[in-house]
Amino acid sequence: MIVGKAVPRVDAYDKVTGRAKYADDYFHSDFLVAKVLHSTIANGLVKKIDTSAAEKIPGVVKIVTCFDVPDICFPTAGHPWSTEEAHQDIADRKLLNRRVRYYGDDVAAVIAEDNVTAERALKAITVEYEEYPPILDVHQAMSPEATVLHEAFPGNVLKHTVFSVGQYEETPDDPDTVMFEGDYAVSPISHCHIENPGSYAYMKGGKIIVVSSTQLPHICRRVCGQALGIDWGKIRVIKPYIGGGFGNKQDILYEPLNAYLCTLVGGRCVQLSVSREETFMCTRTRHAMEFHMKTTVRKSDGRFISRKMLCYSTKGGYASHGHAITANASNEFKQLYSAEKGIISEAYSVFTNHITAGAMRAYGIPQADFALESFMDDMALKLNMDPIDLRLKNCMREGYEDPVTKIRANSDGLYQCLQKGREVFHWDELRKKYANQTGPVRRGVGVACFNYKTGVYPISLETASARIVLNQDGSIQIQMGATEIGQGADTVFSQMAAEVLSLPMDKVYIFSEQDTDVSPYDSAAYASRQTYVSGKAIKKTAESLKRKILDYAAWMLDMKADELDLQHEKIIVRSTGEERLTLEEVAMESCYSMKESNHLSAEETSHCTDNCFSFGATFVEIEVDIPVGKIKVLNILNLHDSGTLINPQLAAAQVHGGMGMGIGAATAEQMLYDKKGKLLNGNLLDYKLPTAMDLPDLHELFIENADPTGPFGNKSLGEPPIISQPPAIRNALLHATGVAINKLPLNPQRLFEAFSESGLLKEVI
Amino acid sequence: MIVGKAVPRVDAYDKVTGRAKYADDYFHSDFLVAKVLHSTIANGLVKKIDTSAAEKIPGVVKIVTCFDVPDICFPTAGHPWSTEEAHQDIADRKLLNRRVRYYGDDVAAVIAEDNVTAERALKAITVEYEEYPPILDVHQAMSPEATVLHEAFPGNVLKHTVFSVGQYEETPDDPDTVMFEGDYAVSPISHCHIENPGSYAYMKGGKIIVVSSTQLPHICRRVCGQALGIDWGKIRVIKPYIGGGFGNKQDILYEPLNAYLCTLVGGRCVQLSVSREETFMCTRTRHAMEFHMKTTVRKSDGRFISRKMLCYSTKGGYASHGHAITANASNEFKQLYSAEKGIISEAYSVFTNHITAGAMRAYGIPQADFALESFMDDMALKLNMDPIDLRLKNCMREGYEDPVTKIRANSDGLYQCLQKGREVFHWDELRKKYANQTGPVRRGVGVACFNYKTGVYPISLETASARIVLNQDGSIQIQMGATEIGQGADTVFSQMAAEVLSLPMDKVYIFSEQDTDVSPYDSAAYASRQTYVSGKAIKKTAESLKRKILDYAAWMLDMKADELDLQHEKIIVRSTGEERLTLEEVAMESCYSMKESNHLSAEETSHCTDNCFSFGATFVEIEVDIPVGKIKVLNILNLHDSGTLINPQLAAAQVHGGMGMGIGAATAEQMLYDKKGKLLNGNLLDYKLPTAMDLPDLHELFIENADPTGPFGNKSLGEPPIISQPPAIRNALLHATGVAINKLPLNPQRLFEAFSESGLLKEVI
Repeated sequence: MIVGKAVPRVDAYDKVTGRAKYADDYFHSDFLVAKVLHSTIANGLVKKIDTSAAEKIPGVVKIVTCFDVPDICFPTAGHPWSTEEAHQDIADRKLLNRRVRYYGDDVAAVIAEDNVTAERALKAITVEYEEYPPILDVHQAMSPEATVLHEAFPGNVLKHTVFSVGQYEETPDDPDTVMFEGDYAVSPISHCHIENPGSYAYMKGGKIIVVSSTQLPHICRRVCGQALGIDWGKIRVIKPYIGGGFGNKQDILYEPLNAYLCTLVGGRCVQLSVSREETFMCTRTRHAMEFHMKTTVRKSDGRFISRKMLCYSTKGGYASHGHAITANASNEFKQLYSAEKGIISEAYSVFTNHITAGAMRAYGIPQADFALESFMDDMALKLNMDPIDLRLKNCMREGYEDPVTKIRANSDGLYQCLQKGREVFHWDELRKKYANQTGPVRRGVGVACFNYKTGVYPISLETASARIVLNQDGSIQIQMGATEIGQGADTVFSQMAAEVLSLPMDKVYIFSEQDTDVSPYDSAAYASRQTYVSGKAIKKTAESLKRKILDYAAWMLDMKADELDLQHEKIIVRSTGEERLTLEEVAMESCYSMKESNHLSAEETSHCTDNCFSFGATFVEIEVDIPVGKIKVLNILNLHDSGTLINPQLAAAQVHGGMGMGIGAATAEQMLYDKKGKLLNGNLLDYKLPTAMDLPDLHELFIENADPTGPFGNKSLGEPPIISQPPAIRNALLHATGVAINKLPLNPQRLFEAFSESGLLKEVI
Repeated sequence: MIVGKAVPRVDAYDKVTGRAKYADDYFHSDFLVAKVLHSTIANGLVKKIDTSAAEKIPGVVKIVTCFDVPDICFPTAGHPWSTEEAHQDIADRKLLNRRVRYYGDDVAAVIAEDNVTAERALKAITVEYEEYPPILDVHQAMSPEATVLHEAFPGNVLKHTVFSVGQYEETPDDPDTVMFEGDYAVSPISHCHIENPGSYAYMKGGKIIVVSSTQLPHICRRVCGQALGIDWGKIRVIKPYIGGGFGNKQDILYEPLNAYLCTLVGGRCVQLSVSREETFMCTRTRHAMEFHMKTTVRKSDGRFISRKMLCYSTKGGYASHGHAITANASNEFKQLYSAEKGIISEAYSVFTNHITAGAMRAYGIPQADFALESFMDDMALKLNMDPIDLRLKNCMREGYEDPVTKIRANSDGLYQCLQKGREVFHWDELRKKYANQTGPVRRGVGVACFNYKTGVYPISLETASARIVLNQDGSIQIQMGATEIGQGADTVFSQMAAEVLSLPMDKVYIFSEQDTDVSPYDSAAYASRQTYVSGKAIKKTAESLKRKILDYAAWMLDMKADELDLQHEKIIVRSTGEERLTLEEVAMESCYSMKESNHLSAEETSHCTDNCFSFGATFVEIEVDIPVGKIKVLNILNLHDSGTLINPQLAAAQVHGGMGMGIGAATAEQMLYDKKGKLLNGNLLDYKLPTAMDLPDLHELFIENADPTGPFGNKSLGEPPIISQPPAIRNALLHATGVAINKLPLNPQRLFEAFSESGLLKEVI
């Protein structure tokens, strides 16, 4: 068995030795440099752009403004396209925008011989705006006085949905029930992937070629084609190794603009590198969301009678992923806990003049989970129940099926994660131990859990394909449309192929770079889909190659293919185990046979109509210094039921990464705007991202319930690890101090304010 | 019909704009430079190499000598491998050679930070040799006193073959027969492709990656694996656009050495560029050959009774393509003209201390054709017959089948080329007109013809594969294992796919670069095989994709696939011609269908067991200035039966290129050695290659007899155009002056000597 083993990453050696090539490494010379001019207002209209001074600067090759670009609106979301118009993403973006919708919007671009000249040219361009009042609040945006940001959306509401299950009912007359309410909010944060977005674009072979740090080359190709109004086949996208994306590179960012720019300079190679500051200011953020929660509980047993959530989600200036992320948050509320009577989950996605919110790891669930799981502990406290007990009484159990999507809980993993964590974390002892503390430094333990689906079926298309070629030495070459974005995808695909073909890992090569001219199609890296959806594709392809190998061996041996099997690089007789040929012999003969050469390869599409839930929980022990307002995480444990693990070490690494990001979101990270809508802390100095030095030891524990729908029993794991730290830490803080803080992040300023307000600060100093 | 049309080259735009990438363009910085130290003796043994001074030069990274490299002998010929040992190429080469076999042999290599340092290091290395007398003549090589160059070949004879047909008989007693004899010789020449060989090698993804200007990336990969003694799957070869090869890059030259060198510097990228001087001195040459011809002719009707050829072929220091080229020459003698009683064609390939002879355009046939076709005119003169009449009486006719290979003449193209040329060239008038000239400047007309097979079946494996992917816009991507080497292969493959799929050319994209990690397998560019053998593969693959498209369309329409057809990007109902879907609609649906996505692509192997003969002839009119010894070509016409032409303009370009090379070989080119075996004229100044300025207008005429075995009626065309100019020009000179010159080239020195010897010079001055 190779699946299930902690084999080393297939790209480890190349990454640590610097052999791995990233987008920026593609060209070293002979390219032009493009830079984008960003608006200095958040809401308004470009009236005039004067480029005359800039054009006189030696080395400036070309300047284009929002008045020059094609009059085409295109969508930027990294979703598979739909042939049904109703399911297509909102096309509200132009290559450069005259109607400015956030501070930093793209209004012009310069192509110059070098960086310095391009920067100088940007400074020499003057823009005259018609300025409108910036809209920096969802409720302000929805007011009748607000300027409309997109004509197609009067009232600035992109979408409003109400999901309901059963018959929601409030029972004020029932003395055994009590209704709780709470308000919670999550601030916008930035992905902070190591590698900034960037691309090279040039023309060759009748095509525009874009080398980009994207999570999804095939979708990038489609969007570039749409944005330029040309046939999609005329675009070729190459995706090298990438230094993380976390969903930010699940949007198509500056690739279409760069594709367009290179056409203006005769197809010469143009570099468009997005700086760290631009990455903060001009790409995507996690959605800020506000929640109002209501739950009616039966006091006698803690069972939920009815549940209701109202969510306002801040979209920022452009639709990007549209309402999908808010809807995902809304679904989480609906699914995680049942209610005897009914559940209503209502949500608004609202345009504002913030930086556009898009996909970020776990796609809306962290926001919903913060509200929901904080609310759980607030209710448990008021019910005088243990928070785990309240969860266990109401949480999703095996057999649950979403009434709309029909996605099922194929295991009791959520319950098991809570139970197992309670035990190994010594929950009950610690809850008791920290129950009645005094003094300025106190400790507490908290928990939070979640469920997460796997891929996007049936909401959207799930499809993946793969190709495998047999080499003469009996090794194989894998080509995936699915992308390695740092998560270890190439390694798990290699393990899966090795498993099916019974090969050692050193006989499996994977072509890591995706190139839309030669790579099989895949929607690529998002929605924790690849190990599951693309995993089915590589499994199917490996099985197909195995059949072809056995067919060829059978021809060589004058036997029937079903009498043979491939095991450990040998062709054996199924019935006796007798070795008849080596795989290398078959491979050599198939390549060089004078009688019947046949270059064995397989390429298969897996059309996926499965989905399933993964589960997990975070247990955390913190220490809070009340006067300083600082939380220290003493111990943290994530438990996951992500089905069978393909590679336990990579799985643990995914979890650690998520936990680190989750701790950052819990305690430090937020994007701050001034009154004009200008981002205040758009750089890695002022944006408080935790470093490795700031993080505690990270512990993980897996409960491997093999999922019947996964290609190898596996299900989603990529995104889930980031979800439950913020509410768990918030709940631990509540446990330690009795103070409920309902907005992220739990940074010193917010703690100071909350401790002041509650009187706790006065009490301890 | 797109096949048969002179559509523009698919790479024309990229090539003229400089977008096309050649091997040297792959890296611009961050690589080390390797240079090879060549022996300064032609025959001997390296006793000692002192690298100590060189190692002290700053910037020298690594020096390896023939004492350090793996003790592995490998073959270099660009033949498909054979799993049968008897058919494998001779493995007589090491990465660096202690046993030196020609002046210029590789004895050490330097890796340095830059070119200048590498050159300085080469100069600082001292080599001590044990020197043996250089062997610079095949007969000397075969003498018992000669040192043996390869232990496995005592007597220095690589191979000796005797092909015979019927019962050869000399008939001295028959008064109606006469036996003629003649001796002919061809000098070695150099390929003079525009782009010198060169490669980059580096390590990534567990592999050694070699970017090389090679004709055959998959074979290059195999040979690199063999040379380094590692699994072939651990090698990846990338072939960009290449600036010609003409067979020189059908040998694996310095790629294995470079692959090895990069492993010595931690996988860093190493450039090994072969200079023009090294290309002359250290790569391959066309075989020098000597021929003794005998033919018994019936005087009354000019029919041949018996024919015999004895050939000595100069191999130089290493086996390279072994005896294959000499055998090919030997076959041409056997095939081109029949004899009533019998034919014997005997040939020796003999090792000498010359530069290794390898493949060059037309693979031995130009040498044989020079001897054979010169001999024809010598006989015709003595028989007082018109040379065309003598040919027509004896030449290969439709229905001929080689008794061993079973290759057939499927047309009467040879006869037709001679007849048609006679007519359009006004042969009979000009022969008469120039019959009795006097004076120092005279004119003459000459002819020569040939047959040529298509690919290498059944002597060797013929196999090819291709892959086509359908894009969402209904365009296609082609990937071939077959290589574009300047001949226009990518264009004709694109035409073939467009033809089968009924697509306009702008909907066909071809991925020109071969990459053994992703490109389908093909033996690649040699033996005029690709349009025929690989053409069958692209045809089969396009047909396979068409079936898949119709299957998918049938599913969409709820019809049967055989009720539908694909025409002009539309899915039509076969019976009525009604348009039901566009190809784009099918492509979009197959990609994005929520019900049944299927990423349509096809990949097929064509195992080829066909071969057939092409034919052609050169007609030439020359003027010779007897005192100056200079030939001026006044008019030249090549006629070809290469079956149906895929692209008449590209076909004409192939013919023009061949005619230019043929005129060069006829009148100017030869490689000259000094007594020690050192090449005297190994550069483009001293090696007299004709330039465009030196060439006359080139005329071509095609007789398109569709071949039943060709994928589109086509057969070999790549090599044939180079064959028949030298004997035609030689025969025209004979016609003009009565002087028979039997050795190439017909340069002023040789003409001066011949005219002096014959007394003609004295006569005219």
